[in-house]
This record gives sequence, structure tokens and C-alpha cells, in this order.
Amino acid sequence: MNAVVLAVGDELISGKTVDANSAYLAARLAERGIEPVAHIAVGDDVARIADAFRRAAEVGEVVCCSGGLGPTPDDVTRDGLARAMGRPLHVDATCLERIEAFFRARGRTMVPTNRVQAMIPDGAEPMNNELGTAPGITGKVGEAAVFCLPGVPHEMRDMFEQCVAPRLPRGSGATVTRVLHAFGVGESDLAARISDLLQRGAQPLVGITVSAGVISLRIIGRGKTASEAAQQADAAAAVVRQRLGTLVFAADEPGVAALAAAVLQELREAHETLATAESCTGGMLGEVITAVAGASEIYRGGVVAYADDVKRQSLGVPDGLLSRHGAVSAPVAAAMADGARERFGTDWALGITGIAGPGGGTDDKPVGLVHVALTGPAGSASERHVFPGTREVVRLRSALTALNMLRLKLGASRET
Amino acid sequence: MNAVVLAVGDELISGKTVDANSAYLAARLAERGIEPVAHIAVGDDVARIADAFRRAAEVGEVVCCSGGLGPTPDDVTRDGLARAMGRPLHVDATCLERIEAFFRARGRTMVPTNRVQAMIPDGAEPMNNELGTAPGITGKVGEAAVFCLPGVPHEMRDMFEQCVAPRLPRGSGATVTRVLHAFGVGESDLAARISDLLQRGAQPLVGITVSAGVISLRIIGRGKTASEAAQQADAAAAVVRQRLGTLVFAADEPGVAALAAAVLQELREAHETLATAESCTGGMLGEVITAVAGASEIYRGGVVAYADDVKRQSLGVPDGLLSRHGAVSAPVAAAMADGARERFGTDWALGITGIAGPGGGTDDKPVGLVHVALTGPAGSASERHVFPGTREVVRLRSALTALNMLRLKLGASRET
Repeated sequence: MNAVVLAVGDELISGKTVDANSAYLAARLAERGIEPVAHIAVGDDVARIADAFRRAAEVGEVVCCSGGLGPTPDDVTRDGLARAMGRPLHVDATCLERIEAFFRARGRTMVPTNRVQAMIPDGAEPMNNELGTAPGITGKVGEAAVFCLPGVPHEMRDMFEQCVAPRLPRGSGATVTRVLHAFGVGESDLAARISDLLQRGAQPLVGITVSAGVISLRIIGRGKTASEAAQQADAAAAVVRQRLGTLVFAADEPGVAALAAAVLQELREAHETLATAESCTGGMLGEVITAVAGASEIYRGGVVAYADDVKRQSLGVPDGLLSRHGAVSAPVAAAMADGARERFGTDWALGITGIAGPGGGTDDKPVGLVHVALTGPAGSASERHVFPGTREVVRLRSALTALNMLRLKLGASRET
Repeated sequence: MNAVVLAVGDELISGKTVDANSAYLAARLAERGIEPVAHIAVGDDVARIADAFRRAAEVGEVVCCSGGLGPTPDDVTRDGLARAMGRPLHVDATCLERIEAFFRARGRTMVPTNRVQAMIPDGAEPMNNELGTAPGITGKVGEAAVFCLPGVPHEMRDMFEQCVAPRLPRGSGATVTRVLHAFGVGESDLAARISDLLQRGAQPLVGITVSAGVISLRIIGRGKTASEAAQQADAAAAVVRQRLGTLVFAADEPGVAALAAAVLQELREAHETLATAESCTGGMLGEVITAVAGASEIYRGGVVAYADDVKRQSLGVPDGLLSRHGAVSAPVAAAMADGARERFGTDWALGITGIAGPGGGTDDKPVGLVHVALTGPAGSASERHVFPGTREVVRLRSALTALNMLRLKLGASRET
């Protein structure tokens, strides 16, 4: 069974915005054994949208489209769908009531412009949007099942899971994907350990993607039934885990969030607590930790010590350390972690100080230099890294490296 | 003059990789007055690639394609192009010599697999690749000028500038885009203020996209010359700015980063400093602020006060306030901001406390409830919001709302 993924928006075809929605939708379809064979993006133009729907419906049994369902006059996906279906639009009363309720719940009155969002083609059905005003639409163009979702990424994702997934036809055979995340090694070094599994046409198929140093391995098992596919994927995942050892830190969750979740889970089981002291990451470490729901049981808080006298006053970093070694140094990173652990009364604390760039580097201390320290019941340890990449990448890798230090430490102390 | 942008690769259509090349190519074409009207992505399949070239050539006078020019058996863009052109492939001697030289220059011998990269369809021409082994190909499918570039982003970009740009036909006139970012209003409310400019076919064209509450307006001016197009876009941008007033906070930079940059710029000019006190955002506000290079001159630091006793100890929030109003309340948000301002010795401080969800909501205090406080030289103010969306979205909107409060305050005090 084939699928075509559509995206609608002038901002996409003009190149102002990179279309990430289509990759999301394609991956979710592929997981269900529905094979995406093409993506098409068109602008906010009724004729081109209608044409794209018709062509997609010639190739795919399933067509998933994102974008163009907003309330402004440039949002014309519903008109394009109506034209492709050869049916007029009508106002759906349930939809209209839901949109009005969405505004009421927020103490606002629906402006008349939003009324257009309740319009759907005759013969199509609305799909509920829990997170915004734009309802989705599902209908048929020729023999193809068409699903139109909003372009706002979190609304699109939620609607796919809530409304589209349950309505999808069964794919031919089943596909089950297992994802493993690894951290602390280069991509080619990791690939060398599993090169036999990475050959094209290998069953199961193993693919690698990298983001901010987190290497994600997607292991796709296929079979006649879901349990056959799962068995195949699980067997391969076990081989990969065994070859990669402690490099693998989590499975199946999104990469970056998974590292924080893995650490919090270990701390929860040990009834231990955590604090942070950040300089160059400016709060990103705390943010990554608290992105995990339920973090408040473990994470007590942190200090963003951007200025040197904040490092002194709020974390008790000794003046002598700062003047002798400079703010970006192993002793200061350790003193920051020590200070956070003491002030917040936690079992563990992480400290980060570095030069995220693009300015501020010297020959001795280049852009990308970061010291990460971990303080725990048995004392402090620190690591020195020089991360390549932009300011954003340096900061994210710093935060992840700190979490990974704690993860490996917790793993090691649990084993002894 | 119209263009279609193609991308080839199984990793793209399966959703493993987000296609950023097409946005790049589209933007470069649009700048030259050649209007991208569609993007199409297909997998590594000769028949589908050939079909995509043919369809693209029906719609666009220019077709730019990236990907599928590598040396492995899954790289079949050249075969697809040959089929679309109805011509066989031959080995281009100059190309072959260049590829061999590329390997020689690196002290390596060309492996036989790479020979396939020297093959181009009869009637087409190779384009030189300074950075890798894959030559580009340019030819004609029907009346359309087709350009095939490698998928590796930096090779693709270099080849576009070196080889494609000089060969492009002259676009009909020029296009100039201005972008304005607004915050603090719903999309439909904003649209209502400029509805006449949003009509389809309006000149210049104004388009709207929304991300985490930041509304981005793209104003596309067209003219015979670049300066005529710029004049048209600038005139429309001035009208939009005037209608939207203080809702507009920045122009032309990426939305979220621009809000922090705008605030920091105002503070820099006033020689004033900033601190933060965060609960539900867990460091995200600090992170967004410090994502701006040079933030250290203005931003001194912050406290992530996730646990209540951290709010007491590190920010001096009175016990009575916490027990009387609860941690998620306007008085506690204000006390957090006051505490940060005092402890960090800054002119301004922002405090955030809320329920990001998914758990922890009650009838009185639902998920999404956030109190944001601003303390400055003349005292404190706070705002209550209930944000829809996921934990991630609630947190990001909270951080942006805090920044926006400060931005509006700074704007108002500057005017008086």
C-alpha cells in the first residue's frame, strides 16, 4: 500500500521554511506498513492544491496533507480539497461549535474570520483538533483516503495520533520500528561496530541519523504480522545493544529527551536528587531535564551563573579559582557543581562552563571548549571537551554530555 | 518564470531525513525572480524519478534536483534523467578524469564503483563539483532546463553558486521578501487588522505563519528590478508595522530568537541588566536569552526554582505567600522576580511559575496556567495566561510571554 505526503504553504515552496511535517507524516505511515512513495509541496493556491491532491490520489491509496487550514485568506487547502473532490464546501455545525468553545474556554470571543475553519467539503468529515482552532478534514479523492492536518507541528502530530492513525487502512504486512539512542562516540566508529547490519537490503533494515551527538539507530522489522515484524526488530535490536554496550542509553523515545528521561528514571529508583549550575548553557541543562514530565520529584533546581560574580555569590565559587584558572576551567566547573549540590541540598549536581561562541575564543581556550563537572556523594569529577559546531550545537552537546556523565556514573555505581 | 524543485532519496520519502536542500534551492531561485511553484520528493527509483522530471518539466521552465548522484547502487538520478530525456547514458571522459584526479589529490586510488559517477545522458553536460566526487548534470527535459546537484548540502550549495546560478535563464522581474514578527495576539485577531493586505492576489503578497505564538508575516514585493521590488515590499511592511504597532517586535530574523535579541538590544542601549527566576520553564527562559551571542553583557544569571524550598531559599519567596496562594500564583511569580532582581543586583528580573502539564492540573489551576511577573525600577507587574498545547509549547510560550512583557515595558518607558 502506497502513500503520498503533501504539504501546503507559500513559505515552504519559496524556501523560507523547511518542511519537517512531511518527514514526520512519512515516518508514521511507514511504521504502519504504508509506504510513502512521494512528497509534494505546493503553495497557497487552490488550483495547484487541487491538482496535487488529484495526482497524489493517482499514486497513493493514502494521502496525508499538512498546512493551509488556518483562518486567514491564504489558507485554502479546504478549497483545494473541495475542488479535487468535485464537491462544494459547507459549514459543519459541530466544528463551528467546537471552535467557538475553544475561544470561550480561553475567555475570548470567536472572531468571524475563524468561521471559515468550520467549512468542509460535502462528503468529507472533520477531525477534532484538541490543541488549536483548525479542525482536520478527511475525505476521498477518487479511491484514495485523504487526511488534511494543520501545519502547526504539535497540532499536526497530535491529530495524526488521535484521528488519522485509527482511521488508516491496514498496510500490506506489518512494519515495526525499534529505535536505540547512543551517545559518546562518533558516527563512523559506531557504524564500524555494526557494519554488517547497515548493508542496503539487509533485513531488518538499520538506519542511522545523528543530531547534536545523539546517534539514533532505527531498526525496521517487517513481517506478515505485527508480532513477526516485532520479533525480527527485537532480535536485531538485541544484537545492536550487545555490540554497542553502554553507548546505548535509551530506546524508542525521542533522542534528546530520552537521555534526560533515562537519567531521571535512574535517580527516581535510587531516591536521589539533582541540581544544576550552568554558565554557557544558560539554563538549557535545566530545560532539558524539566522537559520530562514528573521531573520535579528529582530535580530541585539550578543556578544560571552567567556573570562571574553570580558564580561567586550564588554558588560560592572562590575568587581565587576564578582569577587563577579563569571562569572556563575544570576547577571552576567543579566548584560550580559543588556549590549547587550544597545550596540545593541534593545528592548530585552538574556544573557546566564553556565558550559557546561565536566570539570569546582564544588560542588557549578556543570556541567550543567546555568543562563539565559532576559532584556526588563520593566527590567530584570533570571532563574537558572541545565541541565543533555552532553556538546552538555547542550548548546542546554540553548539556547532553553533562547528563551522560551522570548516566554512566549511576550505571557504574549500580553495578558495584 | 516558474520552477519546480526535486529531491531524490529513500531517506527523504521515508521520513528519516528532513529535506532542507529543497528549501535552499527554492530560496535561491526565488531571489532571482524564478518562482518555485512546487517541490516533489521521490525515492531511489528510476521510474519514479523519470516521472517526477517529466511532471516537473510540464509545470516549470526550470527544474532543480538534489540527491541520488553518489556511487552506490541506490544512486539512480542520472538513470531517471536519461529516461525522462529519452537518451542513453555514456561515460564522459572529462568527468572521469576529474573524479580520478579528486582521489589522486587525496592520495587515494579511485575505486571502480565511482566510475558510474562519470556517466551522463547523451545531450546533457556535466557540472563540476569542487568539493566531492559527484559531478552535477544539466540538460533539457522538453523545454525545461534541468539541473541535477549532489545531495550533500555543502556540495549542493557550492555547485548551485558556481555552476547553476550562471546558467539560469533570467527570471521575469525580481522578488524581494521582508519578514516581520509579532507576538501577543491571536492569528485571527492580527489578520483582522490587515485583512485587505491578505487577500489572494494582493500586491505585494502578505503571508502568515505561526510558531509557538510568534506570528511571522512575509511580505513579498515584485518588480521589474530588485529596487522596484524592494520599494514595494518596504512600503507594504511600513503599512503593516503601522497597523500592528507594538505587536511587531522584529524584522527578518528567525522568530523566536528575534524576540530575545530585540529585548537584549533595548537593554544594551539603556545600559540595563536582567536576571530570571523560573519554575515550570526550568531554565528555558535563560536558554532563550543566552542563545543570543553577546548576552553576557546584559544577562547576569538566574535561578531555576523547581522545588518550593528553592523558591524560599534561593529567591526569598516568603513561606506565607506559598502556603496562602500556592506556588502557581501571581504573588509568587512577583516574589520570584523580586528575589532574582535583588540577589543578582539587576535592573530587571522576570519570574515564571506555572503548570506545564501533562499532569498537575486542577479545576482552579488547569494545565497551561502560567503566571509571568516582571520587576523593574518602578515595581512589579504580572500576567496570568492559560496556554493551550503540549508541555513543550506551554513552556516555550511562557518564556516568550515573559520576554514580550519586558519588551513592551521597555518600549513604553522609552516613549515617556
